Amino acid sequence: MIQVNVTLTETIRVLLDEKKYSTLRDILITMKPFDIAAVFEELQDEKTPILFRILPKELAADSFVEMDEETQEFLIHGFSDSELKEIVDELFVDDAVDLIEEMPANVVKRILRQADKETRRQINELLKYPEDSAGSIMTTEFISLRPDMTAEMAIKRIRRTGVDKETIYTCYVNDENNRLIGITTVKDLLLAEDDASVRDLMEENVISVHTLDDQEEVARIFSDYDFLALPVVDNEQRIVGIVTIDDAIDVIREEATEDIEKMAAVLPSDKPYMRTSVLGIYKKRVPWLLVLMLSATFTSTIISSFDAMLASVIILSSFIPMITGSGGNAGSQASVSVIRALSLGEIEFKSMFKVLWKELRVAALCGLTLATANFIKLIFFDLRGYDNAVIIALVVSLTLVGTIIMAKIVGSGLPLLSSKIGLDPAVMANPLISTVCDSLSLLIYFGVASLLLGL
Amino acid sequence: MIQVNVTLTETIRVLLDEKKYSTLRDILITMKPFDIAAVFEELQDEKTPILFRILPKELAADSFVEMDEETQEFLIHGFSDSELKEIVDELFVDDAVDLIEEMPANVVKRILRQADKETRRQINELLKYPEDSAGSIMTTEFISLRPDMTAEMAIKRIRRTGVDKETIYTCYVNDENNRLIGITTVKDLLLAEDDASVRDLMEENVISVHTLDDQEEVARIFSDYDFLALPVVDNEQRIVGIVTIDDAIDVIREEATEDIEKMAAVLPSDKPYMRTSVLGIYKKRVPWLLVLMLSATFTSTIISSFDAMLASVIILSSFIPMITGSGGNAGSQASVSVIRALSLGEIEFKSMFKVLWKELRVAALCGLTLATANFIKLIFFDLRGYDNAVIIALVVSLTLVGTIIMAKIVGSGLPLLSSKIGLDPAVMANPLISTVCDSLSLLIYFGVASLLLGL
Repeated sequence: MIQVNVTLTETIRVLLDEKKYSTLRDILITMKPFDIAAVFEELQDEKTPILFRILPKELAADSFVEMDEETQEFLIHGFSDSELKEIVDELFVDDAVDLIEEMPANVVKRILRQADKETRRQINELLKYPEDSAGSIMTTEFISLRPDMTAEMAIKRIRRTGVDKETIYTCYVNDENNRLIGITTVKDLLLAEDDASVRDLMEENVISVHTLDDQEEVARIFSDYDFLALPVVDNEQRIVGIVTIDDAIDVIREEATEDIEKMAAVLPSDKPYMRTSVLGIYKKRVPWLLVLMLSATFTSTIISSFDAMLASVIILSSFIPMITGSGGNAGSQASVSVIRALSLGEIEFKSMFKVLWKELRVAALCGLTLATANFIKLIFFDLRGYDNAVIIALVVSLTLVGTIIMAKIVGSGLPLLSSKIGLDPAVMANPLISTVCDSLSLLIYFGVASLLLGL
Repeated sequence: MIQVNVTLTETIRVLLDEKKYSTLRDILITMKPFDIAAVFEELQDEKTPILFRILPKELAADSFVEMDEETQEFLIHGFSDSELKEIVDELFVDDAVDLIEEMPANVVKRILRQADKETRRQINELLKYPEDSAGSIMTTEFISLRPDMTAEMAIKRIRRTGVDKETIYTCYVNDENNRLIGITTVKDLLLAEDDASVRDLMEENVISVHTLDDQEEVARIFSDYDFLALPVVDNEQRIVGIVTIDDAIDVIREEATEDIEKMAAVLPSDKPYMRTSVLGIYKKRVPWLLVLMLSATFTSTIISSFDAMLASVIILSSFIPMITGSGGNAGSQASVSVIRALSLGEIEFKSMFKVLWKELRVAALCGLTLATANFIKLIFFDLRGYDNAVIIALVVSLTLVGTIIMAKIVGSGLPLLSSKIGLDPAVMANPLISTVCDSLSLLIYFGVASLLLGL
């Protein structure tokens, strides 16, 4: 839920009841679209369409875009066709598409009926692109220039056509076949001499993405190169749209959230937590819980197959959680580092052996530290006055070394492998890895135990 | 490590050996700073200063900013004082500060000696701000206008002074006391009539941050409101600098990585994985591993205090990993959702009870599902033909319900509480929570067992 100063919403509700419309207008026009949207979300009552009509056209459209689907749908139902048309005309095409993707079919029909022919064509174009593709997040409204223009002509053109463009600051230079041959910025145009030609001003080696490229790739380009917008081209290198940085930022956050969710064995959701229903959350979480519970059968089987040993040295079973726990933690530390490095594009599969070698050395250091600390702890505290305390302490400590090393290798190796075979590394993350680590660490434990205790 | 087409680096190395400088220049000027930086990082040899001299001044500075500290330091050592001065003069102040914060003292001295008096003053200003504060990531170079200017005058001023500003697109309007009274954009100025006054064009309710505000707050504002730059003001509401969106994006990524690392019990590091030494990684990971290992003492104590029960019904011990595992997973699912929602500003402590109530219902659903699945599994497979299989199955299944509910409450509650008392919620995350859950789930387990089995 977006946080907003509640008292303000309350005031607005009161003013609305008292029909103090001009006062309301004065309040609203001082506010940012994001905050206006928050107010509408909090109000959620049959009066909101009236409140919406008070807003100036452009501010109304900008605020509308920021609202959640529920509120948008609620408002649309309150709109007359002509009101709906006004909004749709004000929206940037990519925002209109986002809206349409969220709305139920009957609402979509109404929206499309209101859009003028050209807008409808553009919307349908964009709707064709697969979710999470560059095409699906681009806008088709941008400034295009010809190489033979002068800076002055270019600026004139921008001033004439700029008003309904999402950004005017990056301009795209196309040849007569509409192929993208360069980009230039308003900054360059303004700082240049009036008669300088766009051809001389433009940057010729343009970085662009294809309509079908993954939006994650788009986001990475934005943060690697400090762009404000990125051109999207089709197979013929013709520019079909641009992705603006505000959309790129949304992608960066979504992708980070998705990684985090996957690492915690939650199926990714694109809805904010507070707006997701209990059932919705349940559906995202229970599958992994089931998978992991069942996979724990391995550990159970392993343990019960050693129950003779456990029965004779019952104390051994009390260290199981500590050992599996340490293994799980060590493994997830490694996996998370690798997964994040992968999704930030810092490493690739080809650096697999560099990574494993690094993790091996880290694991050795961590393992020895933990084993030493543990040995001392066991001798002087937990196993004090216990018969063959030293041997048991030795068993546990040696197991720790083995477990940590195994866990770091598994934790760093699995994500890299899954990236290689085209699986999402994040899915390989913590819980799955800890299940693998649990089983292996138990095998190490009982192996070492039967060796040293001769059981 | 930044990925770069190795063959290109190879070619450049060869051309460098053959002293083909004009060819090298032709290659380099077609490249983006980010990629040039990558080449320098891969080359890492005594010839790189020569290669660097080939670059045009501005491109040189832009590429220099993108390089890692090692490469930067390496190059600086190769620079003559006058060369160093050229770079420092080209750098934006905030980049110069980043550089200085990375470099060893002797290099810093050299850099500051080269900077002209004004730059040095600005740098020292910025160095005063605490790490992760808005002040520490802002630049002091921005376009400021007066309200009584006309659009035409404003554009003229921008064309005159814009060249060394990091962004010209957002302009800041100050009164005679340098207090920030409004902002306007080049877009508005260009699309307005020449004689329109800046006062009429400017947006008066400006969102700004204080120099000492946390950079995470800055990042959130950028993604809530689609700004390209955000003004930073001092206690007297005087504008002292601006944060540009490219820096905001870096913050967004850093913060996400930090959250992820903390959730996996890794102390956050600001260095890319592949550039961090083995010892560096070890230092980030071993503290938590130790803490968690020692805290596992609780679980051990609990188990050994019930060893009589385990000895008599040895099979019980084989379900311990499955139960603690499910608890841990359920807990981290909840904690991660809450932590992410907190750091995206979707929820606050005040919604604590909403959250707990939500998690309680989710937990009930998950718990029942798992318990049912588990009961069937035990009866028909694991415990087949076992004496009092049903009771044991019942023990395990009931424990699961209790554990899941407990885990979801702990997992969602702890992060919220720690955010309340000013601790970082992410630190409360998975491993710590799973340790708590482990102990509690064991208590539930043995409690239920002694009840139903009458032990």
